[in-house]
Amino acid sequence: MVIVGVGLIGGSLAMAGRKNGLVKEIIGVGRGAANLKEAVKLNVIDSFAFDISEAVKDADLIVLATPVGGFEGLVKQMRHKLNKGAIITDAGSVKGRMVSRIERLLPRGTYFVAGHPIAGKEKSGVKAATHRLFEGTKCILTPTKKTDASALKKVKALWRAVGAEVVLMDPMLHDKVLGAVSHLPHVAAYSIVNTVAEIKKDGNNFIAFSGGGFKDFTRIAASSPEMWRDIFLSNRENLVSIISRYQKNLEKLKKYIKDKDSKKLIKELEKAKAVRDRLN
Amino acid sequence: MVIVGVGLIGGSLAMAGRKNGLVKEIIGVGRGAANLKEAVKLNVIDSFAFDISEAVKDADLIVLATPVGGFEGLVKQMRHKLNKGAIITDAGSVKGRMVSRIERLLPRGTYFVAGHPIAGKEKSGVKAATHRLFEGTKCILTPTKKTDASALKKVKALWRAVGAEVVLMDPMLHDKVLGAVSHLPHVAAYSIVNTVAEIKKDGNNFIAFSGGGFKDFTRIAASSPEMWRDIFLSNRENLVSIISRYQKNLEKLKKYIKDKDSKKLIKELEKAKAVRDRLN
Repeated sequence: MVIVGVGLIGGSLAMAGRKNGLVKEIIGVGRGAANLKEAVKLNVIDSFAFDISEAVKDADLIVLATPVGGFEGLVKQMRHKLNKGAIITDAGSVKGRMVSRIERLLPRGTYFVAGHPIAGKEKSGVKAATHRLFEGTKCILTPTKKTDASALKKVKALWRAVGAEVVLMDPMLHDKVLGAVSHLPHVAAYSIVNTVAEIKKDGNNFIAFSGGGFKDFTRIAASSPEMWRDIFLSNRENLVSIISRYQKNLEKLKKYIKDKDSKKLIKELEKAKAVRDRLN
Repeated sequence: MVIVGVGLIGGSLAMAGRKNGLVKEIIGVGRGAANLKEAVKLNVIDSFAFDISEAVKDADLIVLATPVGGFEGLVKQMRHKLNKGAIITDAGSVKGRMVSRIERLLPRGTYFVAGHPIAGKEKSGVKAATHRLFEGTKCILTPTKKTDASALKKVKALWRAVGAEVVLMDPMLHDKVLGAVSHLPHVAAYSIVNTVAEIKKDGNNFIAFSGGGFKDFTRIAASSPEMWRDIFLSNRENLVSIISRYQKNLEKLKKYIKDKDSKKLIKELEKAKAVRDRLN
């Protein structure tokens, strides 16, 4: 197995794969020597390489766990070095047209199965990796008409073995769903944190008074900027349209507050609470 | 002690006060008999009344723990029945001009000390109350020039005894600070939840894929609609101006995504992450 990007997700998958006896040898690929050395020391990977085309030459499975914007470039670098039967999968948060673009890049007899483990934690990097990260989580796979059935079966088995529930979804629908429940909240959180930072002129322990609300937002906004830039840009069309909808709802709530429209205001709040209550 | 509004906050303060031997007798005031009976059964209060003017006649301390919009009306109902030396305090999330309005309502020899415990949890109601709710939290008191020194000292001592750190703040500044770090995140969360609810046409287990992001928002939006309507309307001016600032930041982020402006986008995300990292 080759893990491209030995961070929280890539590192955790390596650890869980090893723990479950699913993989014999794990090669890490990355740009930073320090991080890769650390990963060897932590026994997350067996060895590492900087050149992806060299690393993949004996691999059965290649996992892309870097920011999603770079996937096509990585596939271009490695595609002519892949073994017959090699499977590429990924852990990116955006799917959509990227999936068919990568399918078109691959030589006959090599396969791509796109995946998105819904897992993570506040801390990133290989030091935060754990073989239990995927236990009890969901992993969305987004097969297309072109997806090889046996490759899909293998990738499914991998995620199930590390503890995730596998859900199949159309790549385009995936991006709409995740745009709403994950990417939009991140956009909102980044904006809130920057807004509060602008306002806090009067003191500096401002944020100490936030109770639950603001802390949740800062936690969300603490994620890797590089990763989220790539997610936002890769899911650009869905996200722009979802943000516009959000802006309308926000403007409506502001108007009700401004107009002291108590009845319409409480109706909006009750609507949101009902959504939440249906989740329980 | 009289607790007006025997919910999570009022109930927890009653329990903590009793646990710490600070109060002899606790009378609950509310509108719902079922809730008040439950509170007696749980030994949160000793007895209850529906008529606040009757309940306060022997009280040393009256705590307003109902939605903030009703405070002035409650004070009007009880002011001529108060004991000499009685202290009214509150647990409302908005202070501002409400503080001086209540001060003006009170007869000589009775006192108001405004307070805001930064505590809470997802569940509301007296069943969720616990004597440990305030341990390790902050409680903001917002004295004015008119605040009686000895009344302030007593209210300070109460909050300290139940485990809170007391912070003094100007009532107007309180509303700016809380508007930013608490009220704005709630407005954003309510709007996000309603936006996602609008979008989820294609399926119904949509929200199962939210990972961290959306769940934090739904938790925030699960708070009492009545309470938050009152908070939003009571802090209307600050909040409308803070929402406008937020809208500008949101529009900026949307523009960068729309324009594929990778450099400006990552700068915004890094700014937010830096705010967060400074908190650690």
